[in-house]
Amino acid sequence: MPDLDPEEFRRLGHRFVDWVADYRAGLGELSVRAAVEPGWVRGQLAADLPEHPRPLEELLAEVDRVVVPASTHWQHPGFFGYFPANASLTSLLGDLLSGGLGTQGMLWSTSPACTEVEQVLLDGLAGALGLGKEYTFDGGGGGSIQDSASSAALVALLAALHRTSGGTWRETGTDGRERVYVTAETHSCMAKAVRVTGLGAQALQVVDPAPGSLAMSPDALAAAMAADTAAGLRPVLVCPTIGTTGTGAVDPVREIAQVSRAHGAWVHVDAAWAGVAALCPEFRDLLDGVELADSFCTDAHKWLLTAFDASMLWVRDGAALPAALSITPEYLRNAASESGEVVDYRDWQVPLGRRFRALKLWTVIHGLGLEGLRAHIRGHVALASELAARVRADPRFTLATPPSLALVCLRVLGRDDALDDRADDQATRAVLERVNASGSALLTHTVVDGRYVIRVAIGSVGTQPRHVEALWTALREAADAVRRGP
Amino acid sequence: MPDLDPEEFRRLGHRFVDWVADYRAGLGELSVRAAVEPGWVRGQLAADLPEHPRPLEELLAEVDRVVVPASTHWQHPGFFGYFPANASLTSLLGDLLSGGLGTQGMLWSTSPACTEVEQVLLDGLAGALGLGKEYTFDGGGGGSIQDSASSAALVALLAALHRTSGGTWRETGTDGRERVYVTAETHSCMAKAVRVTGLGAQALQVVDPAPGSLAMSPDALAAAMAADTAAGLRPVLVCPTIGTTGTGAVDPVREIAQVSRAHGAWVHVDAAWAGVAALCPEFRDLLDGVELADSFCTDAHKWLLTAFDASMLWVRDGAALPAALSITPEYLRNAASESGEVVDYRDWQVPLGRRFRALKLWTVIHGLGLEGLRAHIRGHVALASELAARVRADPRFTLATPPSLALVCLRVLGRDDALDDRADDQATRAVLERVNASGSALLTHTVVDGRYVIRVAIGSVGTQPRHVEALWTALREAADAVRRGP
Ligand SMILES: Cc1ncc(COP(=O)(O)O)c(C=O)c1O
Ligand SMILES: Cc1ncc(COP(=O)(O)O)c(C=O)c1O
Repeated sequence: MPDLDPEEFRRLGHRFVDWVADYRAGLGELSVRAAVEPGWVRGQLAADLPEHPRPLEELLAEVDRVVVPASTHWQHPGFFGYFPANASLTSLLGDLLSGGLGTQGMLWSTSPACTEVEQVLLDGLAGALGLGKEYTFDGGGGGSIQDSASSAALVALLAALHRTSGGTWRETGTDGRERVYVTAETHSCMAKAVRVTGLGAQALQVVDPAPGSLAMSPDALAAAMAADTAAGLRPVLVCPTIGTTGTGAVDPVREIAQVSRAHGAWVHVDAAWAGVAALCPEFRDLLDGVELADSFCTDAHKWLLTAFDASMLWVRDGAALPAALSITPEYLRNAASESGEVVDYRDWQVPLGRRFRALKLWTVIHGLGLEGLRAHIRGHVALASELAARVRADPRFTLATPPSLALVCLRVLGRDDALDDRADDQATRAVLERVNASGSALLTHTVVDGRYVIRVAIGSVGTQPRHVEALWTALREAADAVRRGP
Repeated sequence: MPDLDPEEFRRLGHRFVDWVADYRAGLGELSVRAAVEPGWVRGQLAADLPEHPRPLEELLAEVDRVVVPASTHWQHPGFFGYFPANASLTSLLGDLLSGGLGTQGMLWSTSPACTEVEQVLLDGLAGALGLGKEYTFDGGGGGSIQDSASSAALVALLAALHRTSGGTWRETGTDGRERVYVTAETHSCMAKAVRVTGLGAQALQVVDPAPGSLAMSPDALAAAMAADTAAGLRPVLVCPTIGTTGTGAVDPVREIAQVSRAHGAWVHVDAAWAGVAALCPEFRDLLDGVELADSFCTDAHKWLLTAFDASMLWVRDGAALPAALSITPEYLRNAASESGEVVDYRDWQVPLGRRFRALKLWTVIHGLGLEGLRAHIRGHVALASELAARVRADPRFTLATPPSLALVCLRVLGRDDALDDRADDQATRAVLERVNASGSALLTHTVVDGRYVIRVAIGSVGTQPRHVEALWTALREAADAVRRGP
C-alpha cells in the first residue's frame, strides 16, 4: 500500500500536530506580513517533482524554510486586515475527523451523517441567531454549509432566477431583462455572481444610499424597481448587506424586503462577517427584518472560529435551491433520494462533491458552547469601542465612519492646522504602509466617499487587549513620523 | 481566549489523530454502507446547541455513537462505488498544516506561499502527466486547484463565454445563441454549468457517439457545429471526456479539438477520474490531443490520494480565466496585483477565498514520490484486469463494456438459457442490492444503452487483492442466489 499505515500516521500525525501547536505558540514573534518578492517561493523549490518517496519530517523543514517566511499570518494576533479568518485550533480537530472519515456528502445516501449533522447544527444555529423557525428544516426552510459567501450569493441568485422566470429559466436561460439591486458598498461577490449567471454587468442596478449614510435607501430601491418594471425589466434579486466589507454599514433589511416583495424579487441578506454577532442578544437587532427575506448568509469561517471553508446559508423555502439546481443522471439515482424524505445537499450548491464540513463547526460549538462564541465576539467588539474612543480623542486621527461591531475605520489628519483631504489621504496611506512594514500588525484599506481609509478589523482568534494597545501605539508613532515629514 | 491554547491543542490533537488512526485501522470490520433510516441521525442529536463548553473527548464519543454507524465509509477497502475518493492518511498531514497556517490565498499578497507552491506543483504535474509546456506558467498557461471538477467545468465555460463573445459577455451577458457540445455520457456537471451560466438547457447539444461506441463522434460534432453556425448560433465549448463516469469511455480529443478550432469553440477536457493515470507512461496515450485543447481537468481527490477537495485545472492561456472572472473593488487592490507580476488565484475561480490546498497535494507527492503514485494506479488497474478476466470467463456474468483502467462494468445473466434483457436487468439490480446489503462491499450502477449495469470502480486507498477477491466471491454468491430465484 503506497499510503502510510495507521501506525505511521499516528506517529507522524503527532509530529504534525506538534508543528501546528508550535507555530501557533510562536506566531506573535513573526512578522504578520510576508516580506518576499514575487517569484521568491518558486525560486526556492525544486521544479522537478520527486521520483522517490521522501521522509515527511523533511517536508516540515521545507515548510519552515519556505512557506512560513512567505506567508501572511492570518492567525497572528496583530492581523487586523480584511475581515478575520478564524481558524481556531478547536475547529482543526473537527476538520481532522472530516478528513479521517473521508466521506463524500453529495447525496444523503452517500453519507447520512454528513447531511443530518449539518441539518441539526444549522437548525440549532438558526434558533441561536434568532432567524426564525421558517429558516429551519422543521419550519420548511433550511440551512447548508457552502464554501463561501461568494458561492452562497451565487446560489441564491440562481434560485431567484428560477423563481422569477416563471419556470422558463432552466430551459431557455436568461433573457436580458433581469435586474439585481445592490449598493456601491455591496461585496463584489454579488457582481461576480451576476457575471457568472450570464446577466452581464448591465443587470446590476446600483441603488443610492440614504442621504448622509452608506446604507441602501429603500425609497431609491422602490423607485428603481418601479422604473425597471415599467420598462419591461424584471427585478430578480436585491442584496442588502448587514456589515459591509468596507465600513460595516447595515442596509435596512425590513424596508428593503417590503419593497421587494411587491415586485416578487428575492431578498438575499449578505451578513458574511457581521451576522454571527446576532448570537449575542444585544446585537440581535442587527437582523431586524431578516424574517422577511428569502435567504441569509453568514460565514463561520470569518468570525465564528471555524476554519475556512464554512459559510452558512439559510433559505426560507427549502425547495428553492433543489428546484433551481437539481440534475439527476442515472449514476446518482438512489432509493433514498426518490423517497423524497431526505435532503441531498448537492442540490443546494454548484459543486457535486462535498466534505463533511459540519464536523469542524460542531467541534467549535461543542468545545466552546454558545457562551464561548458570544465571549469571543463581545471581546472584540469591546476592543473596537476602546480603540474608537481613542481615535475620537486624538487630534491626529478621525473616525471615517461610526465603528461597526469590531470594525473601526479611521483616517489620519495630515497636519494639525490644515483641512486638506488630499494631504489626509496621503498621510493615511503613509501610516498604513508604515505600520504594515513594521510587521507588528497588518491593516488594509478602503475608500469612502473618495477618501482613503484605514480599516481596523479586530477579530483574530488570539487578539488580546495588549495587541490592540500595541497597534494604537504603532498608529500614533507612524502618524507622528508622517506628520513630521521626511 | 475562548479557543484551546497550543498546549491543550497538542494533547487533544494527539487524541484526535489516534482516533483517525484507529478508525482507519478498523475500517475493514465495518459495514461499508450505513444502515440507517432517514432521520435517524437527527433523532440521536440534541436539537438545542450547548450553552456551555463541553469536553472534546465527549465529542469523539458522539462521533463513535452517531456518525460512524451513519456513514458510508468511502475509505473502506470494499468501497467500489461511484469513483474512489482517496483521502490518504498522507494527505491529511498536509491538510492539517493548511488549517494550522489558516491563511487565505485569494490574492498573491494575502499569502505568497499559498499561491506559488500551487504554481510550482501544477507546473511539475503538468510535466509529469505529459500535458505539454503550454499548460505551465512557464509556457504562458498555468494550473490551479479548484474545489471540484464541477467548478472546473464551470470556470472553463465562463472563460469560453468571454472569449467567444468578442468581449461583450461581461457587459451584456448571454444572448441565447450559445451552444455547448457534450455526449449522453458527459458528466452532469457540464449540464449544471450550462444552467448556472444562464444558457439554459436549450444550449446543450448532445452529440451522437461513433457507431458501436459510447465516445463522441467527431463527424457528428462537425455536422452539429456547422448546422448551428449556419443557423446563427455560436459554438462556445465542447467537452470531451477522458474516462466517462458511467463506463470510463474516452472521447477522441484530437479529432474533437481539430473540429472545434475551426469554429473557435473552447475545448475543455474532463478527465476528472482517469486523467491522473497519465502519470504512468503506459497510459499516457489516453491524453492524446490534449495539447490542442484549451483546458484540462483531473481530480487529485478521486484517484490521486489527496483528500477532497482538490481538483486540478490547467489552461493553455493563463490570461483567460482572469479576463473572464476578475472584478476588483477597492479593498482588494494592492501593489503586487497591480504590478502584473503575480497570479491572484481568486480570478481563477468563483469563490473569493481559498484554503492552502496545495499543501495536501505537496505532502502526497513528497511522501510517496511519483513512483508511489504510479504504483497506486497500476495496482488498481491490474486488479481490474483480473476481475474483468474472471467476469469474461464466468457464464453467469458478462462485461457491459470493455474495462477502462480500474473500472469494470458488468451485468448478470438472469438464466443460463434465456436471452432476456429485462430479466438480466432485474438480476443485475438484485445482485447489486444483495452485495450492498451484505455490508462487505459497496457498488453503484449506471445504465448503458438502456440496460442496468453494475460499476466496479477499484481505487480505494486500502483496496488489496484480497478485497477484490472477496467482492468476486460475493458477486458469484449473489448471482447464484438470484438465479435460483426466491
Ligand atoms: C459582506 C461580505 N460578503 C461576502 C464576502 C465574501 O466572503 P467569502 O470569502 O466567504 O466568499 C465578504 C468578504 O469579506 C464580505 O465582507
Ligand atoms: C468525468 C467526471 N467529471 C466530473 C465529475 C465531477 O467531479 P467533482 O466531484 O470533482 O465535481 C465526475 C465525478 O465522478 C466525473 O466522473
